[in-house]
Amino acid sequence: MTEADLLARLRRLPLHPGAHGLTDDTATLGGYTLTTDTLVEGVHFLPDDPAADVAWKLLATNYSDLAAKGALVEGVLLNYPLRDADWDAAFLDGLDAALRDLGGALLGGDTVTLPTGAPRVLTLTAIGRDAAAPARGGARAGDTLWVTGTIGDAGAGLAIARAGRGDAALRARYRRPVPRLAEGRALAPLVTAMMDVSDGLLIDAARMALASGVAVTVELVDVPLAAGVTDALAAATAGDDYELLFAAAPGFVAPVPATRVGRFEPGAGLRLTRAGEPLPTPRRLGYEHGLR
Amino acid sequence: MTEADLLARLRRLPLHPGAHGLTDDTATLGGYTLTTDTLVEGVHFLPDDPAADVAWKLLATNYSDLAAKGALVEGVLLNYPLRDADWDAAFLDGLDAALRDLGGALLGGDTVTLPTGAPRVLTLTAIGRDAAAPARGGARAGDTLWVTGTIGDAGAGLAIARAGRGDAALRARYRRPVPRLAEGRALAPLVTAMMDVSDGLLIDAARMALASGVAVTVELVDVPLAAGVTDALAAATAGDDYELLFAAAPGFVAPVPATRVGRFEPGAGLRLTRAGEPLPTPRRLGYEHGLR
Repeated sequence: MTEADLLARLRRLPLHPGAHGLTDDTATLGGYTLTTDTLVEGVHFLPDDPAADVAWKLLATNYSDLAAKGALVEGVLLNYPLRDADWDAAFLDGLDAALRDLGGALLGGDTVTLPTGAPRVLTLTAIGRDAAAPARGGARAGDTLWVTGTIGDAGAGLAIARAGRGDAALRARYRRPVPRLAEGRALAPLVTAMMDVSDGLLIDAARMALASGVAVTVELVDVPLAAGVTDALAAATAGDDYELLFAAAPGFVAPVPATRVGRFEPGAGLRLTRAGEPLPTPRRLGYEHGLR
Repeated sequence: MTEADLLARLRRLPLHPGAHGLTDDTATLGGYTLTTDTLVEGVHFLPDDPAADVAWKLLATNYSDLAAKGALVEGVLLNYPLRDADWDAAFLDGLDAALRDLGGALLGGDTVTLPTGAPRVLTLTAIGRDAAAPARGGARAGDTLWVTGTIGDAGAGLAIARAGRGDAALRARYRRPVPRLAEGRALAPLVTAMMDVSDGLLIDAARMALASGVAVTVELVDVPLAAGVTDALAAATAGDDYELLFAAAPGFVAPVPATRVGRFEPGAGLRLTRAGEPLPTPRRLGYEHGLR
């Protein structure tokens, strides 16, 4: 079963109004924004990634969803699998430091033991408040598509972490993504749609277009790349960026560093251009769970 | 690292006021009650337990924590690991049925893939509202200790599930515990302390006494046992009952089926009697995660 199949089945369950039909990355309840992410050892992080970096990433990926809502961080729940004392201690020290850096406080959680040899599966649920951003489905034909920061850094960083050598700054972008909380807060009241780039710029742009009922064209030459990243197509289909992707009216002037990378038009689907020339859309637009 | 070590370390993290110092099974935020539980294949359920029963149990264990707060069910978040399509479909059908039986609706969640052969790790976060119960630390010397339903059924049911034969009703108590939502709601305004029995009657009674700063004596003859369960000491140290354990003033008349099983006194610790005669306290009072 793919993630898409699962989603279709989940949508047949009794849904809370705050689930918004499971079309968004966050749920709402009262004045709160809820999001949850699970990281699996060997899938979302490497077995030899430092435990403190895994703690950072677990918090940061959740906060990235709150950032896309322009929400303030309130608190977190942690579901933690005990396995070995040194790793556990390093993880908790890392989570402590991450909470002090990024804000928020522990509300509660659950602790379990894992069978010997089982990969770690870590879940964190983050709760924000006072969200001010529109949903991902608000883009209109004529709007422009923007992204904060640079794209593909984490994909390049993953290759560096796997190889055990290479640019440390790119590796840090994979291991320690920085959620764009302040940027999200600044952009929220100004944009027509916003989400974070977790699975890849192209797949997430396609999702925004689909949710908005419009088509999107991404101009590959405009995709902002970090120093050391050269293949824009690879960058635009790599995951784990945790930048903010947003739609804004034509003529929009961004209040935070951001780059215009495309535009929305009537129709449906994703188109790709390089310097204005149509490119074939790659078969794989990004990372999809459950697709092998 | 044991669960107790982990808790001590977690208490040094930035804590939200709604975490109540991590002394309770639930957190509070605004008018909401938050709880989260993780089930691990091979630890909390057996690999050949039916997927629909696992879905039921995942929802029911969380709702049991809401029941202990006298809360109304609001919604749930699900962190689901895709592995094989038939099990996934059966799980979702089971969750659908469980939500329709027990109440609540899906707010959102996350989907991940697991490495081949990895045990399933399932997390559900439940949110309730309008909680009316005191915390587990409210018992006073002189109060009486009570429990709903019968104890040890799930422990006996686990043995039956492992053996592949035996009383189906007891096996169902292990696979499909029924959270005492209505009972919790009725008891909440009347009791001085309440929690659910998840790890064993004795260990949970000891935890209530510790949180309340008093001693507790449990009378083994009074522990209510289901038909087919005969060893009261084994029953009182088996987990997964999901009954409600509560303290109430002397002379309390319970508005729901419940049995008086002990009393609170000045001092600290757990004492055990059989027909009034002191019994040695068993070394193992119940299930503790992280203790092998």
